[in-house]
Amino acid sequence: MVGPGRYNRPDREGETVTATRTIKIDGRFSMHRGGYLESPTIAYETWGTLDAQRGNAILLFTGLSPSAHAASSPDNPSAGWWEDMIGPGLPLDTERYFVICVNSLGSCFGSTGPASVNPGTGERYRLDFPVLTLEDVADGGYEVVRALGIERLYATVGCSMGGMSGLGFCVRHPDLSRAFVSISSATRALPFSIAVRSLQRELIRQDPKWRNGNYDPADPPIAGQRLARKLGMMTYRSAEEWEHRFARERISSEREADDMFSGDFTVEFYLEAQASKFAGHFDPNCYLYLSRASDLFDLAEHGGSLASGFAKLRLERALVIGVRTDILFPIHQQQELADGLDKVVDDVEFARLDCVKGHDSFLVDMDAFRPVLSRFFG
Amino acid sequence: MVGPGRYNRPDREGETVTATRTIKIDGRFSMHRGGYLESPTIAYETWGTLDAQRGNAILLFTGLSPSAHAASSPDNPSAGWWEDMIGPGLPLDTERYFVICVNSLGSCFGSTGPASVNPGTGERYRLDFPVLTLEDVADGGYEVVRALGIERLYATVGCSMGGMSGLGFCVRHPDLSRAFVSISSATRALPFSIAVRSLQRELIRQDPKWRNGNYDPADPPIAGQRLARKLGMMTYRSAEEWEHRFARERISSEREADDMFSGDFTVEFYLEAQASKFAGHFDPNCYLYLSRASDLFDLAEHGGSLASGFAKLRLERALVIGVRTDILFPIHQQQELADGLDKVVDDVEFARLDCVKGHDSFLVDMDAFRPVLSRFFG
Repeated sequence: MVGPGRYNRPDREGETVTATRTIKIDGRFSMHRGGYLESPTIAYETWGTLDAQRGNAILLFTGLSPSAHAASSPDNPSAGWWEDMIGPGLPLDTERYFVICVNSLGSCFGSTGPASVNPGTGERYRLDFPVLTLEDVADGGYEVVRALGIERLYATVGCSMGGMSGLGFCVRHPDLSRAFVSISSATRALPFSIAVRSLQRELIRQDPKWRNGNYDPADPPIAGQRLARKLGMMTYRSAEEWEHRFARERISSEREADDMFSGDFTVEFYLEAQASKFAGHFDPNCYLYLSRASDLFDLAEHGGSLASGFAKLRLERALVIGVRTDILFPIHQQQELADGLDKVVDDVEFARLDCVKGHDSFLVDMDAFRPVLSRFFG
Repeated sequence: MVGPGRYNRPDREGETVTATRTIKIDGRFSMHRGGYLESPTIAYETWGTLDAQRGNAILLFTGLSPSAHAASSPDNPSAGWWEDMIGPGLPLDTERYFVICVNSLGSCFGSTGPASVNPGTGERYRLDFPVLTLEDVADGGYEVVRALGIERLYATVGCSMGGMSGLGFCVRHPDLSRAFVSISSATRALPFSIAVRSLQRELIRQDPKWRNGNYDPADPPIAGQRLARKLGMMTYRSAEEWEHRFARERISSEREADDMFSGDFTVEFYLEAQASKFAGHFDPNCYLYLSRASDLFDLAEHGGSLASGFAKLRLERALVIGVRTDILFPIHQQQELADGLDKVVDDVEFARLDCVKGHDSFLVDMDAFRPVLSRFFG
């Protein structure tokens, strides 16, 4: 999302506008499935002020594609991806909480990922990047928390893929967070979601410009990325929303005559527009790694079963929010997560929202999500 | 489906085994959205015997990809795509009924389509084929019925896309069929299904071998067809089926190490296998035309509204069968179709089946479908 945030600041020519800071991890960072990174960087952004007791911090893990810029600030007044959720008086109230959003390890917005230069070779990692897991993403967040001198988080919050990263974080660092909020996420991916992401990866990989990961950064596999984004949109939104929003609305019949297969219906042009917005703004190899990491995560691998994974948690409170029309992380997975948490956490709330906008509702249906989060953080 | 049917016949070397017959339409065949075909051919297959009153014929329209070979027969003993539904003692009982299955106009199994030679030019039609609609497919069926000397059909049956072809048939030739059976179909496509098919078409068109429709028949855009088939399978089956069938079952870890993105989960290899079975067995241009025809069909275009479309029907009985887990033709569309029919047809049955195999259930969950069809045709 690009646009004005709530902070007005005159443009200062030539200046890079960013609120993103980084930490550099000392020495080798061991990856969960083997291999290591030499002194990787983790990018993050913060809002609000850490209180004297260092007890008011909220750690936020993102979905697959967002950066750490979750909200505007005086340092970067452009709107963030969760602009309406983080700020003064908002559910993640920056007058009370110190909010930290981490750019996932493996991503391309400041954190080390496949598009970064490997200090050992002086070349980009590309497919030499080790297998990425959400446990690694979680540990990247842990390093930021430690670097900020925080010993106890008020809460860990994760949206979509970030919910699994957050769950991994709470399992691997059980005494660090008092509360956990999972938004439209799960304990692990089911085969339909795996199939969707697997095909998205194949759509990028089959683009001749991908060149087995060795694409020219100035000429990346945009065509494959566009196709992958279109497939993604079909699972991020819902058939129900589209039925109301587009129905069978047609584009002009002149265009129809032009090219027999260029598209007849408004929904096809909506997907075109969405694909154009995304493709080229995310590194293709980073996408592949994070996408596969989403498939690989499984809470049950922490101890051999979901129950043993849940049993590792040391939380005081948990909140699970899911949406009825989500087909990527379906509502019965939210129920499963809430039920599992309920066995090991005293205070668990499950909010089943009736939004029509599917998986993406947490980004676009703020009126439904805000009250639930406000109550939890109020 | 290839395999032995219920008829054993010794192989006769060098002989083409087929039960498919054809009619050639005299002169110009005008297409619903403009243009015409010169003397097109319609392929069909029949089972059973037309009775003396010529009143026991059932006309069957197929989904997008099947041929007219719906069931085995002494002339072609290989199993058909609806082998368990058509035959002696089966729901479409060939000891009582004369069953006709038509290969859709625009397809590539004997009927004229984009892969056929245009008699006007001596070259394949390719993208010079006029815009195809399901009304044209319906009229192809009409020509077969007329050629067989049938003035009144016992019933018209259509599965998936064929349900819309059948509905178009009954609207355009209202006094021809006494009954109509719609199986996992609809009055028109909704935007989610349009989006899926639009992306499938794009996956074929983006394959460099497609060459704007001018592919080498010996080297067609198989890669694009494979991708389209994978996407198709995600909508033909259901997330629920896959959750039970595949869960998170992994392929061997050796293969995993081989190639980072070649696939980790059994569901990915299932899709590979499905794609291999299909790609190369269907002409890509025919696929594009039939796929778009599925999007374009809208009962409401027959008179300006769904109600006016329904009002054109002159049926004695109708049966609508739908499946709870179908995401391509969702169950609320079956309800809408049944409700619309109920206003204009005396005897309407709506069967809402609880199959887990999604849209494809009518091909694979015979135990659920057989009793409903047996009752209707009993």
